[in-house]
Amino acid sequence: MPGNVATLSGRGVRVRVPATSANLGPGFDTLGLALSVYDEIEVSVRAEPGAFVEIHGVGEGTVPTDDTNLVVTSMAYAFTAVDQPVPGVNIIAHNTIPHGRGMGSSGAAVVAGIMAAKGLLAGIVEFSDTDLLRIATEIEGHPDNVAPALFGGLTIAWETAAGPKHKKLEVNRGVSPLVLVPEHTLSTKVARGLQPAQVPHEDAVFNVSRSALLIAALTQSPDLLWDATEDRLHQNYRASAMPATHELVTALREKGFPAVVSGAGPSILVLADGTGERSAAAEFVAAEATVPWQVHPLAVDVQGASVAQLETA
Amino acid sequence: MPGNVATLSGRGVRVRVPATSANLGPGFDTLGLALSVYDEIEVSVRAEPGAFVEIHGVGEGTVPTDDTNLVVTSMAYAFTAVDQPVPGVNIIAHNTIPHGRGMGSSGAAVVAGIMAAKGLLAGIVEFSDTDLLRIATEIEGHPDNVAPALFGGLTIAWETAAGPKHKKLEVNRGVSPLVLVPEHTLSTKVARGLQPAQVPHEDAVFNVSRSALLIAALTQSPDLLWDATEDRLHQNYRASAMPATHELVTALREKGFPAVVSGAGPSILVLADGTGERSAAAEFVAAEATVPWQVHPLAVDVQGASVAQLETA
Repeated sequence: MPGNVATLSGRGVRVRVPATSANLGPGFDTLGLALSVYDEIEVSVRAEPGAFVEIHGVGEGTVPTDDTNLVVTSMAYAFTAVDQPVPGVNIIAHNTIPHGRGMGSSGAAVVAGIMAAKGLLAGIVEFSDTDLLRIATEIEGHPDNVAPALFGGLTIAWETAAGPKHKKLEVNRGVSPLVLVPEHTLSTKVARGLQPAQVPHEDAVFNVSRSALLIAALTQSPDLLWDATEDRLHQNYRASAMPATHELVTALREKGFPAVVSGAGPSILVLADGTGERSAAAEFVAAEATVPWQVHPLAVDVQGASVAQLETA
Repeated sequence: MPGNVATLSGRGVRVRVPATSANLGPGFDTLGLALSVYDEIEVSVRAEPGAFVEIHGVGEGTVPTDDTNLVVTSMAYAFTAVDQPVPGVNIIAHNTIPHGRGMGSSGAAVVAGIMAAKGLLAGIVEFSDTDLLRIATEIEGHPDNVAPALFGGLTIAWETAAGPKHKKLEVNRGVSPLVLVPEHTLSTKVARGLQPAQVPHEDAVFNVSRSALLIAALTQSPDLLWDATEDRLHQNYRASAMPATHELVTALREKGFPAVVSGAGPSILVLADGTGERSAAAEFVAAEATVPWQVHPLAVDVQGASVAQLETA
């Protein structure tokens, strides 16, 4: 319907997407938490095809600014998925989610592009939550980061024959996330290559118990977070790829702090039980860490990605 | 302290313990649900050492009635664990939990003996919940049945260096259990022998997602119970040991009913979303099953094991 192209003229949207931390210890490829660090983009439809992205903050000078930008390709994918022609756009991005650190920056870019498409197509095409998750997962490959980026809070995401699904849960107010970000990056692809094809049955059962417990701990009983964040299915296999991360997670856990690798690493997430424990963990890192870590006390983002129409002149 | 022996003279207790269903699909060796079927025993201290058990109901004529009875050995174990001499006892048992069906009869006998010890030692020795779970797990080998038998509701049980722990959760009122009990039995030991040492990493991750989801489904969202009860870590490996069970679980699931093997089998648990779905599942079994099944609509037991002092003459 070429007529729809004309209706997008002059449209613009502002999109905000939270950072996410996936896995959360035992919940490999399934659990994720939205955190109060955001990428924001303004997208304006322009007459010419193609895209130009003006990037401020994280990724400025390194991330592509043309049609190959992940936000742009994700937006285009979403338009195509609903049989709509892809408009030309100008994008201004203000990024604060660190790249290559296991904080969900890639998933956030995917979600930003899809939410931009949803906003620009308002009144023309409606995207359900199921649509958004399906499209985002098709692009990103796994739903574990895109689900919390889209919906906020704690999410359980899983694959079914009918596509990916998610369940959003409210996190107990006592849960106090602390994110530790190192200076170096790590490719998710490299980290995934370190997974074994087979694991001991007892390790599988171990993680089954801890992931069930983690849902109870995060929603009801933060005092159980240390036990609930134990993992035997991915962190140790990947330790050689991030020795500083492995060392600090181990040291934090030995001191009783519920530390896990954030996503594919190398950042660390401490799911502290209260702000007192969180402060103590931050002090421990400041005193004991052997390499520099940026220390971010964060809140759980409860809203997820949002899109608003821009006032146009 | 031989003096304590005298203080037990004339003491008697009544103990009630619920049936349990462990595993619940993905939650192998960790999740368990207490159900509204009970074994009840009356235990009276007698002057002579040893024990005599009068059994009514399930196990009458087949279960040992002397010191080798599992209730008696478990009670003796609990006395010994707290350095108390084992008294002679007469026991009258009224059993309704089926034996060898995956309904937790063995765990219930263990818990009955321990709760009898707790009751008989009231005022002399205090047993904490941690003590009860540790002792029961030492006897039974795994905490997954004894935790719900002791504490009721839905339990997550896990092993730590400091011993077994549990978290009890309240089950959403919509969850409507249906238990299907066949005429034949199956040894838990035989079933356990069919477990592989190694499993595919993706199957481990699959169950991690479903066990996390199962906590959300059972506590908040019964509409997710079908997805949440999928399993790849034990049921298929054991299918050859219980073909009729495997056949009916498969048929029920294909019709959309959240059916799982109860414990080590061969009973089946349907975690229906509401009494309407439960009735429909029962009708499906009546119409389609190729072997006889006893059909029991049950409630979740929320109290767990209880012990009361008997009035003595």
